Amino acid sequence: MSSYVRPVIEKLNAYRVTPPDYEIVVNANECPWDIPTVLKEEICQQIMAAPLNRYPDAGFRRLLTALSDYTGYPEDHHICGNGSDELVAMLYQTFVSPGEITVSHSPGFAMYGIWAEIAGATFMDVPDTEEGVPDCKAMIDLANTHQAKMIFICNPNNPTGYLFSREEIVDIIDNTQSLVVLDEAYMEFHGSSMGDLIDMYPERLIIMRTLSKAFGLASLRCGYCLGNPKLIDYLYKVKAPYNINSLTQIAAEIVLNNRDLLKERLVLLKDEKCKINDLLQCLPDVQTYPAASNFIYFKTPKAEAIYNTMEANNILIRYFPDDHAIRLTIGSPEENKKIAKILKEVCHDQSCNHPS
Amino acid sequence: MSSYVRPVIEKLNAYRVTPPDYEIVVNANECPWDIPTVLKEEICQQIMAAPLNRYPDAGFRRLLTALSDYTGYPEDHHICGNGSDELVAMLYQTFVSPGEITVSHSPGFAMYGIWAEIAGATFMDVPDTEEGVPDCKAMIDLANTHQAKMIFICNPNNPTGYLFSREEIVDIIDNTQSLVVLDEAYMEFHGSSMGDLIDMYPERLIIMRTLSKAFGLASLRCGYCLGNPKLIDYLYKVKAPYNINSLTQIAAEIVLNNRDLLKERLVLLKDEKCKINDLLQCLPDVQTYPAASNFIYFKTPKAEAIYNTMEANNILIRYFPDDHAIRLTIGSPEENKKIAKILKEVCHDQSCNHPS
Repeated sequence: MSSYVRPVIEKLNAYRVTPPDYEIVVNANECPWDIPTVLKEEICQQIMAAPLNRYPDAGFRRLLTALSDYTGYPEDHHICGNGSDELVAMLYQTFVSPGEITVSHSPGFAMYGIWAEIAGATFMDVPDTEEGVPDCKAMIDLANTHQAKMIFICNPNNPTGYLFSREEIVDIIDNTQSLVVLDEAYMEFHGSSMGDLIDMYPERLIIMRTLSKAFGLASLRCGYCLGNPKLIDYLYKVKAPYNINSLTQIAAEIVLNNRDLLKERLVLLKDEKCKINDLLQCLPDVQTYPAASNFIYFKTPKAEAIYNTMEANNILIRYFPDDHAIRLTIGSPEENKKIAKILKEVCHDQSCNHPS
Repeated sequence: MSSYVRPVIEKLNAYRVTPPDYEIVVNANECPWDIPTVLKEEICQQIMAAPLNRYPDAGFRRLLTALSDYTGYPEDHHICGNGSDELVAMLYQTFVSPGEITVSHSPGFAMYGIWAEIAGATFMDVPDTEEGVPDCKAMIDLANTHQAKMIFICNPNNPTGYLFSREEIVDIIDNTQSLVVLDEAYMEFHGSSMGDLIDMYPERLIIMRTLSKAFGLASLRCGYCLGNPKLIDYLYKVKAPYNINSLTQIAAEIVLNNRDLLKERLVLLKDEKCKINDLLQCLPDVQTYPAASNFIYFKTPKAEAIYNTMEANNILIRYFPDDHAIRLTIGSPEENKKIAKILKEVCHDQSCNHPS
């Protein structure tokens, strides 16, 4: 160990993902389709015309205009980051001092805890109940006991797909004194946001969203926070001057302004999710969870066999060994057909370690 | 003030730069020319073929290959960040705990100090001597007195253009126990790096570089650290999983691999810098500094008049009111001609508040 590295960093694992080289990739909750060619052409036209030798617009103003049109909130209610990753980092940098506590539910988005380590804060998560439902009462108690500075709620939750009710969210805000961050990365798949709560709690609530999922732009790394300027203005203080590069600003603006072209996909993905869900509910020994997202989470003693068989068939899914659980991103109809076939085979067939 | 914001953040200023809308922009040390059209076309071709719905390669492997070919060091000696901004943040997150001290010279790159605030560290800078030369002896003493965790050296320095000698750098490393970060953002304009020192000091020295300046890609926000894996591996622990987006990876790789196309520009910019420098040395009451970069720093009682006259002529330059100093980025030959004309007029003409 270098004598220079901070002790809290020493124990972190470097995230060096090898990009999956599979025929079907349904492990990362990506959209199965690229954006329409007509939009890519427009992006390239604008890139050809853009001065790449110049710094980006530090205030990403055209992007804010497009976001404002989408969310219905004024431009000053938004700030952009390099994906939710950077937004979580900025939230810690702005609001959480070393030694302070943050709270969330488990399972949940790993970055809430990783950025806590880097910030020198302590992250505490409350396990879901046996039924796979977040334990809101325990989260409230934990936050109050430790005077938590921030509470993260992922809604719909990744990886379980659980949708918190409006009452649950309000209950957590009303019964704690923490800043609440509502991560709505998967909101569009469910269709309705609780973004309007920022008007009720202008100094208590920040919403996080991303263009990586429903907008199909995971390559870009563009997320945003939505909140009252009373909170958002503080995030601008820690924002690196040119954090969103020019190419991202160009592409994100074009896709946001042409979002009608993406609507049908959301309907199709929802239909596909229902089909996979219906299948899973027919299979023996499979515990499913209602999923308000573009993925389905389920537990089964055959989780490992499913993972292995999928891999043998050139399909990458997400496997949680400790929980005997699988998270399946909803792919295209053709992809889902292949996946369904394997699910049926593994879950009916006793010789489940071998692809059939 | 929100009761949630960290006290150290409250006092920071939000960086909300309005993009300059001037005919000539020579305030940000950008390259005056966009990259060649043939390279933009190749970038667009690759973007058309890239799946924008998929996450970027978290390990930016093709970009590392191109960087390795450029620097001559193995791929594992590099890590990329969203410009030097993110790299400075990562250096603090990895090596500097709250309460620790970092040291640099002044003037220097503002982000060294800003990220110290965010990290809860204390940044101490040593003013240059009256001659505009960094006071290496005082930096060494300050670092030792406070057991500084990290020392930042900007070489060539921004904004003064000062070039530290190899002896000065080695002296600082040998006579302190701090981790030394050598920021070579402007190295290519000078032409020679001290990157080879990482072999002499594998656990003490990290080099920072960027594609924003000599490579003319400020829009992209792509910087990198070069160092022995003994240090670089730690930076990977705090790197956000997908910090370099796919479009940046594509464009940076193409430009690096075609860097021969950019060589002539560097020669031309150097010639232009000499011309401006010669002019400045002829003007009365102008103190110039040898500049190993793509900008020139000078002090004159007429600094404010120069700034105002440039602005009135639709030219944006960088003005440091406290130091009666100007930093001029070297523009294209046509731009420099206009700039030279105004410099001559203001510095000879007593009615210097009015453009002539």
